Amino acid sequence: MVNDSVLNESVPAGRFEYAGLDRLLHERARLGILASLAAQGRGLAFADLKRLCGLTDGNLSRHLAALQAAGVVAITKDFHRNRPRTTCCITASGRARFAAYLNQLEQVVADASAMVRSQKHAVRRAPLPHGAV
Amino acid sequence: MVNDSVLNESVPAGRFEYAGLDRLLHERARLGILASLAAQGRGLAFADLKRLCGLTDGNLSRHLAALQAAGVVAITKDFHRNRPRTTCCITASGRARFAAYLNQLEQVVADASAMVRSQKHAVRRAPLPHGAV
Repeated sequence: MVNDSVLNESVPAGRFEYAGLDRLLHERARLGILASLAAQGRGLAFADLKRLCGLTDGNLSRHLAALQAAGVVAITKDFHRNRPRTTCCITASGRARFAAYLNQLEQVVADASAMVRSQKHAVRRAPLPHGAV
Repeated sequence: MVNDSVLNESVPAGRFEYAGLDRLLHERARLGILASLAAQGRGLAFADLKRLCGLTDGNLSRHLAALQAAGVVAITKDFHRNRPRTTCCITASGRARFAAYLNQLEQVVADASAMVRSQKHAVRRAPLPHGAV
């Protein structure tokens, strides 16, 4: 089953574990939240972040709570024009962690794309069956 | 709060929703499973896939069930040397869907990386405080 393949028994265990890919950040909504905040040195209001990421109040709150608990984002509450305001920032360590995650993700995409291409080439290189034009 | 930023009110709603990113495939373990299978035209035995992806029986089974339900992988069961054997393959449409996902993911990584860099540059370009050497 594995003899005709680029993956044989010499391929080490965990070759496709992609363990370097930070699980906390590897979530579509969190990617959007962190990209928004990374571009925003002074933070974003909760309402703006919600609008940019196309999230509901509940979803954004849940993701922010997880990211805050890990020290990736910081959340401050104050009053602006007599109304309560929540501001979200990426922390310095959160920014570094996000940049490292993006580097890892870039490598994973390159690796997975190479796997897709390797098999396409293998199919293309296969001999034509008898009688094929 | 938003005046000093690359993100102002002219940025459209959902700018960072990354809606094109296929949620079924955007999971670390599934990325590994599909990269393994994409390189393997004739499929992989369950035990080999488990070894390559560093997953438990239960985790791999759950992910495969979700991918099979969506038509991304096909699973066949037969006997090999009198023992039951489970073989997993990526389907043709699953391969196309995975390739499309990887293309999207590459664009998202480039976009998010640009956000991280944009703020770094903004910080670098900021004037030095009075008295700074």
